[in-house]
Amino acid sequence: MTRPGGRSARVRDAVHEAVIELLAAGEIDAAIPKIAERAGVNPTSIYRRWGNRDNLLLDAAVTRLRTTSPIPDTGSLRGDLAGWAEGVERSMRDPHGQILLRALVATMAPEREPIEYLRARGDDLQKTIDAAAARGEAVPSVDDVLDFVLAPLYLRVLFRRPVEPGTGARLVERLLRAL
Amino acid sequence: MTRPGGRSARVRDAVHEAVIELLAAGEIDAAIPKIAERAGVNPTSIYRRWGNRDNLLLDAAVTRLRTTSPIPDTGSLRGDLAGWAEGVERSMRDPHGQILLRALVATMAPEREPIEYLRARGDDLQKTIDAAAARGEAVPSVDDVLDFVLAPLYLRVLFRRPVEPGTGARLVERLLRAL
Repeated sequence: MTRPGGRSARVRDAVHEAVIELLAAGEIDAAIPKIAERAGVNPTSIYRRWGNRDNLLLDAAVTRLRTTSPIPDTGSLRGDLAGWAEGVERSMRDPHGQILLRALVATMAPEREPIEYLRARGDDLQKTIDAAAARGEAVPSVDDVLDFVLAPLYLRVLFRRPVEPGTGARLVERLLRAL
Repeated sequence: MTRPGGRSARVRDAVHEAVIELLAAGEIDAAIPKIAERAGVNPTSIYRRWGNRDNLLLDAAVTRLRTTSPIPDTGSLRGDLAGWAEGVERSMRDPHGQILLRALVATMAPEREPIEYLRARGDDLQKTIDAAAARGEAVPSVDDVLDFVLAPLYLRVLFRRPVEPGTGARLVERLLRAL
């Protein structure tokens, strides 16, 4: 017997994977029936779950970008942020990561509702910062982390400047020096 | 008698304006004949000058974003950068500016040649920085200015976070403190 949660998660993963493969193949305008075919699911399941193509694309991009750069728990804020920034940097050097970031920005049209992406990442960062504060470390705000670390990495990709290895670690050091 | 340079510049301005109006009206996919009609020029002139729609869109966005935030010459690096950052901040609070930034990012697909936008802005900034260094001021690199000031402002717009008044000035202060 298949648990509904297990099946549901498998459908989501298969559909996300299909979206990412199609994006990577340059098929940024792939319609839902095509995505469904590639994922081996019924188009109706996609319409029911995501409503439209933009919501699906956004969910796929957000899920992948978050999971490729989790925040580790190393016991120090410097270690946690450096580990996270290294993951972000790595995913920004990866063509799939770049495509997903572009897709994310492209789907965030001004007339749409604000999206959860940075909020979700912000919540992750807040937990890390709170834990460091509880240990007595000097801590930045989430906005500081986004300004000092995430914005420069993302801007490099969006404006097609190279992301040199070590950029993430350097940006984290700069943030901690500014405290 | 019409000077060729004068007429050429007027055509460029009229076509840029038509592109920006169509983008602002949500017609991001407007084809060249439609742009030509709105600008009151022959489609052939557009094809001859820009080659294709993406080149035209990029040129319109770059030209407008540069001219809405020139770097003033105030006699101090702090004043120059603060004046420039205030212009960038203002254009990022303006719906037209936001649309142009999105159009710029959208046309910079990974498979295209690197674009001149940040290079042109970088050259402007380098001149300002060189003049400050010649006056004996401590100066940042162009990359530092992009990381500390431009990236956080642009990321707010691309991720639909609000750009609070005074953000540009605050980011410039942070950059100068880090020197």
